[in-house]
Amino acid sequence: MLEWQRGQPAQEIDTPALILDIGAAERNIRKMADRFAGRPTRLRPHVKTHKTPILAHKQLAAGAIGVTCAKLSEAAVMIAAGIPEVLVSSEVVGPAKVARLVALSRHARVITVVDDAAAARAISGAAAAAGLRIPALVDVDVGQGRTGVPPGEPALALAREVAAMPGLALAGVQGYEGHLQHVARAAEREASCRKAMQALTATAALLRGAGLPVEIVTTGGTGTHAFAGEFPGVTEIQPGSYVVMDAHYGTIEGVEFEQAITLLTTVISKTRPDIAVVDAGFKSASIDSGMPGVRGFPGAQFVFAGDEHGQILFDGPRADVHVGDKVELVPSHCDTTINLHDVYWVTRDSRLEDVWPIAARGKIW
Amino acid sequence: MLEWQRGQPAQEIDTPALILDIGAAERNIRKMADRFAGRPTRLRPHVKTHKTPILAHKQLAAGAIGVTCAKLSEAAVMIAAGIPEVLVSSEVVGPAKVARLVALSRHARVITVVDDAAAARAISGAAAAAGLRIPALVDVDVGQGRTGVPPGEPALALAREVAAMPGLALAGVQGYEGHLQHVARAAEREASCRKAMQALTATAALLRGAGLPVEIVTTGGTGTHAFAGEFPGVTEIQPGSYVVMDAHYGTIEGVEFEQAITLLTTVISKTRPDIAVVDAGFKSASIDSGMPGVRGFPGAQFVFAGDEHGQILFDGPRADVHVGDKVELVPSHCDTTINLHDVYWVTRDSRLEDVWPIAARGKIW
Repeated sequence: MLEWQRGQPAQEIDTPALILDIGAAERNIRKMADRFAGRPTRLRPHVKTHKTPILAHKQLAAGAIGVTCAKLSEAAVMIAAGIPEVLVSSEVVGPAKVARLVALSRHARVITVVDDAAAARAISGAAAAAGLRIPALVDVDVGQGRTGVPPGEPALALAREVAAMPGLALAGVQGYEGHLQHVARAAEREASCRKAMQALTATAALLRGAGLPVEIVTTGGTGTHAFAGEFPGVTEIQPGSYVVMDAHYGTIEGVEFEQAITLLTTVISKTRPDIAVVDAGFKSASIDSGMPGVRGFPGAQFVFAGDEHGQILFDGPRADVHVGDKVELVPSHCDTTINLHDVYWVTRDSRLEDVWPIAARGKIW
Repeated sequence: MLEWQRGQPAQEIDTPALILDIGAAERNIRKMADRFAGRPTRLRPHVKTHKTPILAHKQLAAGAIGVTCAKLSEAAVMIAAGIPEVLVSSEVVGPAKVARLVALSRHARVITVVDDAAAARAISGAAAAAGLRIPALVDVDVGQGRTGVPPGEPALALAREVAAMPGLALAGVQGYEGHLQHVARAAEREASCRKAMQALTATAALLRGAGLPVEIVTTGGTGTHAFAGEFPGVTEIQPGSYVVMDAHYGTIEGVEFEQAITLLTTVISKTRPDIAVVDAGFKSASIDSGMPGVRGFPGAQFVFAGDEHGQILFDGPRADVHVGDKVELVPSHCDTTINLHDVYWVTRDSRLEDVWPIAARGKIW
């Protein structure tokens, strides 16, 4: 619906615009894939970050064994785009969602996670009625304190129940150490990650010792990929943010990928010497991980000034900044910022290559 | 794309769901309209809150003289839905946007705001070339410190320039006291609002004294509607949030409208006695004004636990809360929460009446 022309300079794109430097994203995908090529741990990237089937297909082409989605509605977008295997990393609860899981399972291998026997029975019942067995992982709380049963005996008890359910096929365990992804110091992150991985793999061993099938031990994110991905017994990791990165991950030691998304804005008001007002606020950049960074103006800070406005606070008067100038921001959190946008403005070498719909944006169900 | 059935109980809607209690919204629209019926100040509600043409039409039917939009893309949605007059309350900058303003002005009366002579000249040039004169307000900074020229002589100087531009028709002044909307104590808010209104109306008088036309003196939001709306010389106010309300406005003394939106969630994990994990996080509720409230559980608190997860922290063990239960949240900021959702689940008397697209969601351009 917006005017654009293939090949136009990136700086001339109408704003606010979420710019995807596709060359940088492709290099990030390659770099992570190369890191795990030939190793026992496989990649199942979390596509909740980029929300876009073409990027998921690029990840598969680089060697990923499938993708991870946060919710069924995200999985539905990926399956409709031909992704053959999806792990849904959040619990599926309620009759509408169970029915949708069963429906999607006719078109792709959809792996579900469970941390409650009654909820698992509901899925099993619907799947069995449809003549299906849906692969299920026991979700284990390895320290994040969000979802999941405790490691060890509680996980074994639930696994035994799941293994006996006719519509489920016990496939292993999931344990996401989300609380560790942004621990800034690498040594501290590694030590904590090892403890979490120890709990997860010991639980996997406990299940195997009880004769239960554990094909999958899945974990890890961009912040812990190096540690979780090399821990013996982990079969796959789920990093997502590495493809596009953000200002928050940019401060995390040892997470070395290129910043592939930026938010292009326009100065719409400049009535004071040291402040410029740009056309992007809460509706264009997420705030849950702090303020976006400002490119090209060392010492400048961005502060939100409402849904549609942001202020660039320069470190002194800037007579060279005028209404109409462009200012590029670095989102503080990629997942939630991408969720605010309908399209990527895809650039290569600072020229507009294409405009891509963010097909799984807003998929909260 | 989601399953639903007209007349189904609201509690059975698949989650997370943004519920609009349309009866409450209709009463809020009526209450604000009644307050200003027969008074000199008119209503030009800001539709950046609800983002939905049918609600804008209900506001017009109740007596509003037009609507206010934040951006041209929002205005385009309203104009396409037959709204005849729109004030765009943010500065229009850049050739693509100026061209769009001119194009929209062929189909509705679009009032623009300016705080920069060069930007105004760009609009004037494009409008004149199209044989149009676009109504323009001088945007005055009445204390918010965002956009706008200072009141008094600087505003007069810009107004003189605008009045001489062939493609613009000077129509008055805008001064938004956004910094006062959420001042909790009514007396303090009123005193500050009076100062801002004094600056705005004195500027209007200055322009009139110089022989310039000032048809419109526009200001005000939900928090200041009572004070700004009764201040002599103010011709219209732009409240938005009153239609649906939020938890933040719910704490503001003297802002007495019904809470018409809530976020329905489902408990997807309950592995601990005093914490329930629900299926709504940063992607379903905005965080810029703090945490959503929790309905029905006195003493409970909501905390975000990621993009798709939230935790309800109860004030003690709750053996009566189970996986699959529904929990209703009250968004902390209506505008930005609504922006995260594609549809309203419209209920009346706790039954699903309809599902409405939020047509102007995501319109950041």
